[in-house]
Amino acid sequence: MTSSSTACATSTTVPSSVTAPRSAADVRSVDEHLAAILSSLTPAASQTVSLAESLGLVVAGDVVARVDLPGFDNSSMDGYAVQSVSLAGAAARPVTLSLVGEVAAGDAPTVSVGKGEAVRIMTGAPMPEGADAVIAVEDTDGAATGSVECRAEAPVGRFVRRRGEDVAAGSVVVRAGDVVGPRTVALLAASGHATVDVVPRPHVVVLSTGAELVEPGQPLGPGQIHDSNSSMLWAAATRAGATAEIRSAVGDTDEELLAVVDEVVGVADAVVTSGGVSMGAYDVVKSALRSEGVDFVQVAMQPGKPQGFGFLAGPGGRAVPLFALPGNPVSSYVSFEVFVRPALRRLMGHADPVRPTRRAVLTSGLRSVAGRRQLARAVVTTGADGTLVAEPVAGQGSHFVADLSRANALLVIAEDTTEVGAGEVVDAILLDD
Amino acid sequence: MTSSSTACATSTTVPSSVTAPRSAADVRSVDEHLAAILSSLTPAASQTVSLAESLGLVVAGDVVARVDLPGFDNSSMDGYAVQSVSLAGAAARPVTLSLVGEVAAGDAPTVSVGKGEAVRIMTGAPMPEGADAVIAVEDTDGAATGSVECRAEAPVGRFVRRRGEDVAAGSVVVRAGDVVGPRTVALLAASGHATVDVVPRPHVVVLSTGAELVEPGQPLGPGQIHDSNSSMLWAAATRAGATAEIRSAVGDTDEELLAVVDEVVGVADAVVTSGGVSMGAYDVVKSALRSEGVDFVQVAMQPGKPQGFGFLAGPGGRAVPLFALPGNPVSSYVSFEVFVRPALRRLMGHADPVRPTRRAVLTSGLRSVAGRRQLARAVVTTGADGTLVAEPVAGQGSHFVADLSRANALLVIAEDTTEVGAGEVVDAILLDD
Repeated sequence: MTSSSTACATSTTVPSSVTAPRSAADVRSVDEHLAAILSSLTPAASQTVSLAESLGLVVAGDVVARVDLPGFDNSSMDGYAVQSVSLAGAAARPVTLSLVGEVAAGDAPTVSVGKGEAVRIMTGAPMPEGADAVIAVEDTDGAATGSVECRAEAPVGRFVRRRGEDVAAGSVVVRAGDVVGPRTVALLAASGHATVDVVPRPHVVVLSTGAELVEPGQPLGPGQIHDSNSSMLWAAATRAGATAEIRSAVGDTDEELLAVVDEVVGVADAVVTSGGVSMGAYDVVKSALRSEGVDFVQVAMQPGKPQGFGFLAGPGGRAVPLFALPGNPVSSYVSFEVFVRPALRRLMGHADPVRPTRRAVLTSGLRSVAGRRQLARAVVTTGADGTLVAEPVAGQGSHFVADLSRANALLVIAEDTTEVGAGEVVDAILLDD
Repeated sequence: MTSSSTACATSTTVPSSVTAPRSAADVRSVDEHLAAILSSLTPAASQTVSLAESLGLVVAGDVVARVDLPGFDNSSMDGYAVQSVSLAGAAARPVTLSLVGEVAAGDAPTVSVGKGEAVRIMTGAPMPEGADAVIAVEDTDGAATGSVECRAEAPVGRFVRRRGEDVAAGSVVVRAGDVVGPRTVALLAASGHATVDVVPRPHVVVLSTGAELVEPGQPLGPGQIHDSNSSMLWAAATRAGATAEIRSAVGDTDEELLAVVDEVVGVADAVVTSGGVSMGAYDVVKSALRSEGVDFVQVAMQPGKPQGFGFLAGPGGRAVPLFALPGNPVSSYVSFEVFVRPALRRLMGHADPVRPTRRAVLTSGLRSVAGRRQLARAVVTTGADGTLVAEPVAGQGSHFVADLSRANALLVIAEDTTEVGAGEVVDAILLDD
């Protein structure tokens, strides 16, 4: 699960509000914590990349067409370029025109078309001088030499694409903030660009910590579990648009963790850890990173109450954001969705980095703890008319990985809501969009 | 725009209906052409890949958990493992228990807990023998040695996650046909898998043909245009889940094209061309590939009427599907969406390879040619309640790349419909999902 590092320097400032010490009793709302994270991050400096590399990235500045589109008047059909007047009455009585030449796509036409004359023309080929319309080959005898019999009229402009009618050279074709998709690539290529300035992908290092963790597929000793969080966070970061890699922080001491962190800040634009942030005696992430500028807080949410966020000092004064997520798989996933994904999207230049919520009708009731925003896992189905139905999964405990895997949405149950009944409407965050 | 080739052999059969010769007058419906393509393709043979490589791919067979989840009874809190009976009445009057040991995550507990005793326990650590409940550290004096004062009761099972309550070893956790996402990766890792059998990505070669084409960014001569289709099709194939590369077929003769095709079938699981398929004199794709098993037909759609599809003979008898799309950028894109994307998704094992349509309300009217299914480009916006509103783009001509780029949906106007009014409901294919 290694991916090459980007060359970009994440440009970030460290606001005092994030690094100010907080007591354990201090509880933030989800919105406060997210706002603190997002306000401390700015998009990375833009890079010029090939169209292939730009797919999925945010365009950094308006892009102007270098050429007209179409670049010249051309035929939209295989047929014959003519003067419209030559074919007056041809629908009633066929007209024979003298074939004076031929022009294929890619040719520069050398002949011009007079009255009573025709030039055989292929789709996309430039209109020859003098011609003002095209008659389709289907409406002729299809002759290649000599003369051509035409059985239809051709009003001025028929089957002619005018230079610049799609795009005028110098006009803006793609705007700063647009996300490059296949159709953007087509427009950029057509309008003369082989490269484009985009906000690059951040490189995320997922730090695996915890003495109980064993790599996926390896045999388990007593008390050990497979490290599923690192792979999950790697995949979620990749899916969010970042490049990502997993590094193992072997050992269980502050010094060992800090040594790995020191290495990692050299290559990471963001670091994500999971576990070691709660109230236990061996919460090494918390104990080691508290003195390194990472702020550990309680957030009024379920799951995902203990959260760490702050900036590590990278080489050259670079501030590298670090997210210390809780260790339970469900808490870790939900925390990524609620805090880390928006942060990564902000670094990537997305104007609105937070997923929109959609309204969904509950199939069965849900309870929620007062004072905490619950993010309940659910299977949401979308009707053809767009309406959503949400079925909460059975296992809402933060260790139910199978139910997490089945879910495709998080239902947002507000802080002051303790119960929602079947048939009621809730906000849903769709995870697979 | 080069991507590494997959090692997989696309297993396909060549049905006679696809290769049967057809006359130019033969017009197929969109549904007939799509059905002919899909029925001729089968998913590629499965491969065992790492969890990282599996992201976004279809699982080839049911996956069974190798371990229970959780793997052992463990604590969901930092606190003290106790016998529930020891804390009877502790909510009213604190109870002091004797601390007989400690167990951290990853430890194998060596002590057992008797009545009046407690073992300090961390989140995720195995429950020691004798203990049947955990009291959270917040409800105690937090002592590390000696004895601990407890100020709450702990019913049997409190803060204990039971072995196997999420997943029992041997049960199916991921099913054949599931698409691997970050949460699937978590479940696979947790249940003991470092690899998974998936249907691999097909490798698509986009063949750039046409004497008028110049690579993006290069200067244009008279009659020349930038090749935007190849980049667009590369991006669309990539977005559909394939790996893709662009190859240029230099020259304008059948022999030159066939020489490149001969090379390409050695590395491609599918080949896509654009242009050269209509009725012009220089439609080299059509003239060269007709004798190679590719069938050129007229499809009752707008845009995208001329379509080629068939199988090339690859090395070792491998049949490589080839899609010859029309050359206008909009026709080419729409053809990819309607025929090639479903074909690639079929090769990737998706049970339903065709995008669902959604109902959308038109903001302005649309006309359509009788007898052809129109795929009109539109900007669709989704309300919070899921309802869609569709605004057709201004330029519906097949050369309007800027309007294509602005659009995010195709509106499906049925063959027998010639006009749809503002406020009416149409089927929409959302392109960015």
